[in-house]
Amino acid sequence: MIHPFDTSTLAFVAGMRVARLATIDADGMPSLVPICFAVLDGEPPVIASVVDEKPKRVADRELARVRNIRRDSRVSIVVDRYDEEWSRLAWVQIRGRARIVEPGVDGHADAIETLREKYPQYRAMAIERRPVILIDVSRVRSWGLA
Amino acid sequence: MIHPFDTSTLAFVAGMRVARLATIDADGMPSLVPICFAVLDGEPPVIASVVDEKPKRVADRELARVRNIRRDSRVSIVVDRYDEEWSRLAWVQIRGRARIVEPGVDGHADAIETLREKYPQYRAMAIERRPVILIDVSRVRSWGLA
Repeated sequence: MIHPFDTSTLAFVAGMRVARLATIDADGMPSLVPICFAVLDGEPPVIASVVDEKPKRVADRELARVRNIRRDSRVSIVVDRYDEEWSRLAWVQIRGRARIVEPGVDGHADAIETLREKYPQYRAMAIERRPVILIDVSRVRSWGLA
Repeated sequence: MIHPFDTSTLAFVAGMRVARLATIDADGMPSLVPICFAVLDGEPPVIASVVDEKPKRVADRELARVRNIRRDSRVSIVVDRYDEEWSRLAWVQIRGRARIVEPGVDGHADAIETLREKYPQYRAMAIERRPVILIDVSRVRSWGLA
């Protein structure tokens, strides 16, 4: 299996606090949301995000990405660095297949633990009761990281 | 015509330095890139971005969004605020139809001028010779701005 991430790209992605996830809605339109995420160790690495209950979250809105993934598992993610010094601009595009993984299912506990390591905010939230989105990465493209 | 932006949402969007744009590729997959953009006055407002030549830009990669828009004009944009204080998280999802507008065509000069007002970086770049992407907004959804 080809590892789609080189080391520096993986470090850039893993260090970012927020990514943007695109799922495909019933009309074939990209549905875009910012997500908190973590990279799970593995070959290749897996990207994990929890379908969480952040303050002010609107239930119906939240579920759109889950419904979309159940219909079409293909997703795109972009992770980028903005800087007013434009020579520092950089981004990484990631494509893959997403799965909705419920509590108790393989991979769920590892995702929750890794997300709580990265985000202290999650330690006080009952995210262990929430489904996670696990993304098997199939393609990575980067720009500006060299 | 219904104005899809309320004042506070428009101010939030217009003030952001970077947005993420999703176009639809030939396989129906979302193609995601960070973009610099400006909001053009109008009823409703139009979002403008230039197909620019930032340092290190890869020509082939750059054209993907243009090719995608010519095939399917539907686009999604997300503008968001990340903060470690998660009560401050907010985002705005925008959907619309995009057009590629060449130099000399209606709307091009206004877009270049507005982009240069917002981004001093563009003043030293020959973006007036580049096509712009103009997005007619059809739907706006926000979360966390109230």
